[in-house]
Amino acid sequence: MALINKERLEKLKSKANDLLNRTIDQHVTLAVTGLSRSGKTAFITSLVNQLINEGSGSQLPFFTPVHQGQFIAAKRIPQKNIHIARFDYDSSMSAFVNHPPSWPEPTQGISEIRLAIRYKPKDSLLKYATEMATLVLDITDYPGEWLLDLPMLNQTFEQWSQHTVTLLLESPRRELSQGFLDKVKEIDPFQDADERLLTQLSQEYTQLLHAFRNDLGLSVIQPGRFILPGELVGAPILEFIPFPNFADIDANDYQNASDESFIGMLRARYVEYKERVVRQFYQQHFVNFDRQIVLADCLTPLNKGAESFADLKQAIAMILKSYHYGQSSLFSRIFSPKIDKLLFAATKADHVTQEQHVHVASLLNELIHPSTHQLNYDAIKMKTLAIASVRATTSGKSLHQGQHVPVIQGRRSSDDKIITVFPGSVPKKLPNDQYWQESPFKFIGFEPLHSVSAHECLPHIRMDQVLEFLLGDKMK
Amino acid sequence: MALINKERLEKLKSKANDLLNRTIDQHVTLAVTGLSRSGKTAFITSLVNQLINEGSGSQLPFFTPVHQGQFIAAKRIPQKNIHIARFDYDSSMSAFVNHPPSWPEPTQGISEIRLAIRYKPKDSLLKYATEMATLVLDITDYPGEWLLDLPMLNQTFEQWSQHTVTLLLESPRRELSQGFLDKVKEIDPFQDADERLLTQLSQEYTQLLHAFRNDLGLSVIQPGRFILPGELVGAPILEFIPFPNFADIDANDYQNASDESFIGMLRARYVEYKERVVRQFYQQHFVNFDRQIVLADCLTPLNKGAESFADLKQAIAMILKSYHYGQSSLFSRIFSPKIDKLLFAATKADHVTQEQHVHVASLLNELIHPSTHQLNYDAIKMKTLAIASVRATTSGKSLHQGQHVPVIQGRRSSDDKIITVFPGSVPKKLPNDQYWQESPFKFIGFEPLHSVSAHECLPHIRMDQVLEFLLGDKMK
Repeated sequence: MALINKERLEKLKSKANDLLNRTIDQHVTLAVTGLSRSGKTAFITSLVNQLINEGSGSQLPFFTPVHQGQFIAAKRIPQKNIHIARFDYDSSMSAFVNHPPSWPEPTQGISEIRLAIRYKPKDSLLKYATEMATLVLDITDYPGEWLLDLPMLNQTFEQWSQHTVTLLLESPRRELSQGFLDKVKEIDPFQDADERLLTQLSQEYTQLLHAFRNDLGLSVIQPGRFILPGELVGAPILEFIPFPNFADIDANDYQNASDESFIGMLRARYVEYKERVVRQFYQQHFVNFDRQIVLADCLTPLNKGAESFADLKQAIAMILKSYHYGQSSLFSRIFSPKIDKLLFAATKADHVTQEQHVHVASLLNELIHPSTHQLNYDAIKMKTLAIASVRATTSGKSLHQGQHVPVIQGRRSSDDKIITVFPGSVPKKLPNDQYWQESPFKFIGFEPLHSVSAHECLPHIRMDQVLEFLLGDKMK
Repeated sequence: MALINKERLEKLKSKANDLLNRTIDQHVTLAVTGLSRSGKTAFITSLVNQLINEGSGSQLPFFTPVHQGQFIAAKRIPQKNIHIARFDYDSSMSAFVNHPPSWPEPTQGISEIRLAIRYKPKDSLLKYATEMATLVLDITDYPGEWLLDLPMLNQTFEQWSQHTVTLLLESPRRELSQGFLDKVKEIDPFQDADERLLTQLSQEYTQLLHAFRNDLGLSVIQPGRFILPGELVGAPILEFIPFPNFADIDANDYQNASDESFIGMLRARYVEYKERVVRQFYQQHFVNFDRQIVLADCLTPLNKGAESFADLKQAIAMILKSYHYGQSSLFSRIFSPKIDKLLFAATKADHVTQEQHVHVASLLNELIHPSTHQLNYDAIKMKTLAIASVRATTSGKSLHQGQHVPVIQGRRSSDDKIITVFPGSVPKKLPNDQYWQESPFKFIGFEPLHSVSAHECLPHIRMDQVLEFLLGDKMK
């Protein structure tokens, strides 16, 4: 009898504990996005990989819950929004498992994955209540272009046109855009719109956006859905263009232009895009994010030149505005996002030698600084890090002209050869004219070096610091 | 002075007339869908083509507004919902313009096109008010599978499973489905769901649906989005399957099963599919349709055999339920669709000889009759027609064993050869066992015979009767 009673008591205790666990479960929605092909898919794959394989040789010394032995285990559980694509961890992981390994296929739109992380609470109040707690982590992956669209919410069609046309008329976009703008200027904006002409022009504009991104290595791509249309492919809502001649038309005529006129149709479609595409993303997703990581490849723009780098800077400034509250902010307090931590990570740190990492981080800091200085970020903690989601190179020293110089070794993407190289030095501060003349840095793409097994931890640089910043405080 | 005044007066009159026209404009939303690869794209292309080129050699004697000289002109105007893909008339039309002509590419989801049709009102009250009126015609193209999903709205997961499993266990689906069902039966429905297993099983089920449609020529494909996922590709909402073992599980256990269990997860995803996919289509589109045309290819199922034909019959019965109001109806009166005319068109009438057309129409009537008989369609006018949206053959007589027999001539799809043939006779009534043993009809696919110029009318069979039924009463 005594035994049975004890068993029953244990069961009751365990049940009560379960119940308590449920009520004190923590929850974080982490948004992951990226600029300039920064390796979003590799990042999420590595983050999930490090957590679910913790214990199997993981290297997370700077992630406190692991360092202090509180971390128990993490596993994938069914995601929250089942109408959103699942982030395909298994397929992405298989790219690193294959022989030879490769980078995973990039994702095309929004996707989600959810983890349950079990840990022993230490410092927090929780420790008095329970021996085990669960942090539920929702990771949402979305294209950086969607983030860059947010400023449109505060722009009229006229403002957006002027802003965009100014951009198109500046180098390096000017050369590619001139023909397009000349064509648009010849159209009488008050004549009845020719829908087929508008389709052609918007296709031309979309091709320009692709060229800006792929050929010129630029980051400011607007409207973002034009290059990733998803379900909207073929819909007129993606068929508008910036209008370059606002200076030449009468404001009253513009106000009174019907939706059937050329300018009126552009305006109507812009408004619909704002409301149906941009605001919908804002309301359905953006406002629900707790924490945001923005991945940026600073190295490729650095290699591409001053204009590509300046464009990255502008993109970062646009992004920061979306997180700014206050009088001059993009959004009113009521509808403001609730993000409390914002991490900018410069990816591909393994593509430079180790002593350059501090320069990469400091350079990213400099890119962010002018905006943070102007704006008031009381409510948001920000951080910058130089990381490699999946480390593709090994680092060492090589003897060169009697001196030990730092080098990296890896499998070069262009010819699949193992090379040992010093790719050059990264400036600590925003590069000046002299830097651009000398261009002392040469970016070399590398493929992953060694395959891993499916349940092995991926090699990385500073993913533990990423985890510490994004999750550490929630697992105390 | 007098001249100027007269001019001004004319302008004012014309303006007043314009204003009047706008207020009395008529509007029809025509929904077009199809079963069994019935040629939806060719149909919409031909319908638009006949209307916008009217006068350029069009053959529309049975379309009263044309016959009585009231028809003025039709043109394409910007569509209503600009976030919906545009029906790409120009691309589809170019398939018929090319040398040699071909059938247009099928559309993949929902698309829209809008026409403004100008006409002189004759019999209606309008004639006293205006000399010219406009009928705005919105054409919405959507996959037949979406229509077949509507009955799910009135089914629980249990009911849907039982209905679907019964179907899977019947010939001809049984042979393909048995392995899949055996696998599902081995799963403990109350264990924690293994999401990856569920992904695999739903992929297997989706492959079955594709095989039913493409290999067996079946019409009842459910859930429809599984084979046309669009924006939902990769989302868990498309990862559920019918559960075959309801007889073996306790009703209470089922009711209490958590969403994390295998059966609970199936149920949760089914419910979400119903609410987010099926109901959304119903509310955003279906309830707004004024008139519906359902295209059905009766000839291919007739050729495929008794089971394929029976499946077409079941699909038609399922569709008819969506249009039925009343006590036992699918939807309550309040949320019921407002469709007042429903046309079933048997397409590819040009693939049989001319004297068989009446049989094709009568056969389609027989397919529809059992359902219409049971249900009460007071509010809806129904009609059946045998048509060819774009006529691909010419018909004539050939001397065979001393007798003049009817034949058709066309370019056979399989080998691109011009052949003259009598494809066989179509039964007037639902075929009996004897018919299926003899199979006197052999379906031969034909490509379009002659190219047309872009502004020429496409050859057709009974498109004028289609127009008369769907639009004639709105243009009086």
